[in-house]
Amino acid sequence: MHNSLFELMNKQELILQIQQKKSFLCIGLDVDLTKIPKHLLTCEDPIFEFNKQIIDATHQLAVAYKPNTAFYEAYGIKGWQALGKTIDYINKNYPELFTIADAKRGDIGNTSAMYAKAFFEDLNFDAVTVAPYMGSDSVEPFLAFKNKTTILLALTSNKGGLDFQGLKTDNQELYKEVLKTALTWQNPKNLMFVVGATKADYFAEIRKIVPNHFLLVPGVGAQGGNLQDVCKFGLTKDCGLLINSSRGIIYAGNDENFAKAAKNEAFKLQQEMEQILNENN
Amino acid sequence: MHNSLFELMNKQELILQIQQKKSFLCIGLDVDLTKIPKHLLTCEDPIFEFNKQIIDATHQLAVAYKPNTAFYEAYGIKGWQALGKTIDYINKNYPELFTIADAKRGDIGNTSAMYAKAFFEDLNFDAVTVAPYMGSDSVEPFLAFKNKTTILLALTSNKGGLDFQGLKTDNQELYKEVLKTALTWQNPKNLMFVVGATKADYFAEIRKIVPNHFLLVPGVGAQGGNLQDVCKFGLTKDCGLLINSSRGIIYAGNDENFAKAAKNEAFKLQQEMEQILNENN
Repeated sequence: MHNSLFELMNKQELILQIQQKKSFLCIGLDVDLTKIPKHLLTCEDPIFEFNKQIIDATHQLAVAYKPNTAFYEAYGIKGWQALGKTIDYINKNYPELFTIADAKRGDIGNTSAMYAKAFFEDLNFDAVTVAPYMGSDSVEPFLAFKNKTTILLALTSNKGGLDFQGLKTDNQELYKEVLKTALTWQNPKNLMFVVGATKADYFAEIRKIVPNHFLLVPGVGAQGGNLQDVCKFGLTKDCGLLINSSRGIIYAGNDENFAKAAKNEAFKLQQEMEQILNENN
Repeated sequence: MHNSLFELMNKQELILQIQQKKSFLCIGLDVDLTKIPKHLLTCEDPIFEFNKQIIDATHQLAVAYKPNTAFYEAYGIKGWQALGKTIDYINKNYPELFTIADAKRGDIGNTSAMYAKAFFEDLNFDAVTVAPYMGSDSVEPFLAFKNKTTILLALTSNKGGLDFQGLKTDNQELYKEVLKTALTWQNPKNLMFVVGATKADYFAEIRKIVPNHFLLVPGVGAQGGNLQDVCKFGLTKDCGLLINSSRGIIYAGNDENFAKAAKNEAFKLQQEMEQILNENN
C-alpha cells in the first residue's frame, strides 16, 4: 500500500480489503532459521524465500503482513536485507496489502523522528508499532506522517504484560491512561493500538475509550487467545480488528509443502472470520 | 570489551576505566548525515569514517560509547553496516571501552530473545537499552546473558518522559515501580537504569531504591541537564554514573577539525568529572 495519495487512504484501503476478502487476518512474518524448512537453507536468501512463498500462498486470505524486526536484526545485515526485500516484494506485487513493521520503537523526539524515517520512508511500511513509555514526544514524530499509521502498545499479550500496564494510577490502570492520553496527541486518527488476544476480558473496557480505532491483536494461536472472545467486544462497524497469527500459520508445515500448509491454516482463520463478519453485518 | 570471560567482568572493567581515566563520560554516536562535516560525504562510508575519527580522538577521555540505533536504521542497510563496523572497530582497537547499543527494545519473551541475540551476539555490544512497558518476560531474555548489561529505561530525559513515568500508581510513581520490580527479575546485578539528567531532582529518590546500580544519564548538554546536580545525589562509591553527551561533543565542529573540536568538548567534561571524583573520593 505504498504511494497512498491521500491522508488515511491506507485505512480506507484496509477496510475495503476486509470487505472484499472477508478476512481481517494479519500474518506475522517472524522468521527463525531454526524453524523453517531445511531445503530453504541452501537458497541465497532463505528468509526472503520463505517469506515470498508464504505471501504468495496466503495473500488472498490475509489483509496485512507484520514482520517483527527482532527476527531480522538477529541475522545482522543479511536479516535487514531480507526485511527490505520482503517489504519491496509486497509493495510491488500486492500493493493492496497493509504492511506493519512490528518494531516497538520509541525514543526522545529527534531520535523517534529517525525511526519514523527508517520505517515509513526508507523501508516504506504503512504502519509501525511504537512503545508508549517515553510519552508524547516519543510518539508524535510517527504521527506526523499523515498517510501512515502508528500502532501504539496498550495492553500486550505476554505473561509480563500486566506487570506495569495493569498498575492502577491515580484514576485508572496504566493501559487506560495510555489510550486516553494518546487520543490527545497530534493526528490521533492515525493511531491503532496493540491489545493482546490473551486479554479478551478487557476489550469491553477498551472499546469504551477507543470505540472506533483499529486494534492490532496478537496472541491468537500459539499464545492461547481466542478469536470469538476477542470479536465479541472488539468488533466495530468497520471491523476495527486486525487479528495477527504468526507461528500458527507460518510454521504449520516444515517440509516442501510448507506454503500450502500455511495457506490451509490461514484459510481456517479466514473462514472463521467470514462467519463472524456475516453474523455481525 | 568483548570476550569477557567472567560474569560481570564488564562492570569491573568499567569501574577500573573510570578510576584510570578519571572520567565517567559516555559519548553518544548519533550520526546524522545532515550534520557531519561535508568533506566526509565523499567517503565510501561517511558514518563509519565520522565515528572512527571521533573515537580515535576521544577514547582516552571517555569510558563508554553509545550509538543510538535509530540513526543507523534511518540509513537502511548502509546504516547497519556502519553500525557493525563501528562496534567491530571499538572491540578490536579499544577493547577496554564499554559499548552500549541504545536500542530501547522490548517485546514478548521469544522475540526479546532475538533482540538479545542481535545486540549481544551478532553485534557483540556490552550493553543494550531496554524499554520496560511489556514487563518481566520482555526484559529477562536480555538479563539471561550473564556477562552482559541490560540498561532499563526508568525516568527518561525527554519532554514527554513524565506523561506515564510520573503517574502515581497504587503505591508510588510508575518509574519507581519499574525500578523496584526490575530488582525482582533474574540476574538483577546485570541491570543499569536510564535516568535523565533533566530530572536531577529525582536522583535522591531513585538512590533510595537502587543505591548501587549504575545509572546511564542522558540529557547533559543539548537537553539542558546539569552535571553537578546529577552527581550531588547520583554518585556511589564506585561512581555509579555514566554521563552521556551526544550532540554537544560530536557536533562541536563541522569542518576538517571536527574530531579535535569533539576532543576539546570531551576534555572539558572529563576535567569537570575529574574534579568531582577527586572531591568525592
